Amino acid sequence: MIYERVALIGLGLIASSMAHAMRRGGLAGHIAGHARSAETRAIALELGFVDSVHASAAEAVAGADLVVLAVPVGAMEAVAAQIGPHLRPGATVTDVGSVKQAVIDAVAPHLAPGVQFIPGHPIAGTEHSGPHSGFATLFDNRWWLLTPLPETDLQAVSRLRTLCEAMGANVDEMDAAHHDLVLAVTSHTPHLIAYTMVGVADDLRRVTDSEVIKYSAAGFRDFTRIAASDPVMWRDVFLTNREATLELLGRFTEELFALQRAIRTGDGPLLHEYFTRTRAIRRGIIEAGQDTDAPDFGRINRGQTG
Amino acid sequence: MIYERVALIGLGLIASSMAHAMRRGGLAGHIAGHARSAETRAIALELGFVDSVHASAAEAVAGADLVVLAVPVGAMEAVAAQIGPHLRPGATVTDVGSVKQAVIDAVAPHLAPGVQFIPGHPIAGTEHSGPHSGFATLFDNRWWLLTPLPETDLQAVSRLRTLCEAMGANVDEMDAAHHDLVLAVTSHTPHLIAYTMVGVADDLRRVTDSEVIKYSAAGFRDFTRIAASDPVMWRDVFLTNREATLELLGRFTEELFALQRAIRTGDGPLLHEYFTRTRAIRRGIIEAGQDTDAPDFGRINRGQTG
Repeated sequence: MIYERVALIGLGLIASSMAHAMRRGGLAGHIAGHARSAETRAIALELGFVDSVHASAAEAVAGADLVVLAVPVGAMEAVAAQIGPHLRPGATVTDVGSVKQAVIDAVAPHLAPGVQFIPGHPIAGTEHSGPHSGFATLFDNRWWLLTPLPETDLQAVSRLRTLCEAMGANVDEMDAAHHDLVLAVTSHTPHLIAYTMVGVADDLRRVTDSEVIKYSAAGFRDFTRIAASDPVMWRDVFLTNREATLELLGRFTEELFALQRAIRTGDGPLLHEYFTRTRAIRRGIIEAGQDTDAPDFGRINRGQTG
Repeated sequence: MIYERVALIGLGLIASSMAHAMRRGGLAGHIAGHARSAETRAIALELGFVDSVHASAAEAVAGADLVVLAVPVGAMEAVAAQIGPHLRPGATVTDVGSVKQAVIDAVAPHLAPGVQFIPGHPIAGTEHSGPHSGFATLFDNRWWLLTPLPETDLQAVSRLRTLCEAMGANVDEMDAAHHDLVLAVTSHTPHLIAYTMVGVADDLRRVTDSEVIKYSAAGFRDFTRIAASDPVMWRDVFLTNREATLELLGRFTEELFALQRAIRTGDGPLLHEYFTRTRAIRRGIIEAGQDTDAPDFGRINRGQTG
């Protein structure tokens, strides 16, 4: 057992997966849960991944030695304000938001000096959300990034790291600003682009919706999966990682215009050179073990390998 | 048996998968194959999905009652010119190119009036290419679009349709121009966007390559898979489906700028509304059976269900 009492604030995909993973490894004594919706709380209790549910976040965190903020980034400040006065001295607070600097700005001011705040971000997810969507293997062999503050106690960081590793993840530490730039590249901008492409397809009236759906080839189908992610979570990501996302979008459109011009002018060599170069990154990802080149794309095993 | 002698011109992913699928169903008597590369021909013979290989396309098509052009769209005209004089009267010629009007323009002038030309496009693929990459279930439950010309013999169309269905595919017919627009939406533009995003990530020097690869989250990882597709095939797609692609890119950037402005001005309601709307298309795709919402995304079963 790594923590005696864990409080999960928010009971969606990430929190429920953490609970399942903690159960699997016997990593937590008591798991307390809070969600705003009574229905969500009832489902969590029925599925049994929490030991108790609480109508208020303040009640849920009482006595907890680990508190996990698993709510949309835009809701972090309100939650922190609620739980701040009720945290046990020496407790560790972490979060699972996709943006880190904005969460630090929102949460840290509400925590007493004796509380250890260690922002975190598990790079794992599916298109699904809600308490039903969690599963114990979600974090297996995925990265879990921690962005501790300079003043954070090293032992507290080490203990949280041990928990993340025991849930199956690989842990890295970096500063919050760097995290937000890296994720703008690897996650936030790709998501915005996928949302845009799916929106464009939806608008194009000459191609009926049924055809777009019926003949959705690999490219578009993958985009729709990305674009089916939780709207509230992603709204908050873009509003709170604004600068990095806007910088990346600027570079993206610049590059897209260059390719567009190559298509218009019929510049085959430029297109061929560009498309050849992008293959190398893909090869790197497969070699880094973040995906496989199996015909099934490794989806079935992704979460199950150690 | 549906055709006594089939000639495959090109022995990559699609042609080798067709051969495996035809073997599975006993759909062809003799399968003859041609590829420009002697190594590819040797591999095809060794893997056994063809009965004979031929150093020239003209030799391969001799006596065939079905000829399948499975080369990049930009190579179609040269191949058609080579085989034209050697086709058996009454033979059916089809192709598997991702663009249809350009293939018709390139191929039809080289065929004798007695030859039935029925352009086709199986909407199926993986990121892999070459004779090793084929498998018998690639077309199972995927769409195979045929764009017959007004003068084509209906019986010839019906026979080819039967073959495609026996290889596991669902068949639809439409005119070539409409095909090219639909595919620009569902496949070509998404591919160009994925290529662009991967290229941008590669260029961003402040984020080291290893980090982009290491922390590649779902969004970017899917993009790299799309962007790892065959560079020659995709160069030809964009050069030959130029107008529809450029039109879609125009709409895409217009839409992207609107979302970019919403991020800059902090317009949360607009972002939330947009992201909510895109979920509906995803739901439609799952309901249409083109993907599943299983946690493994159905990848393992995608090609294997009837």
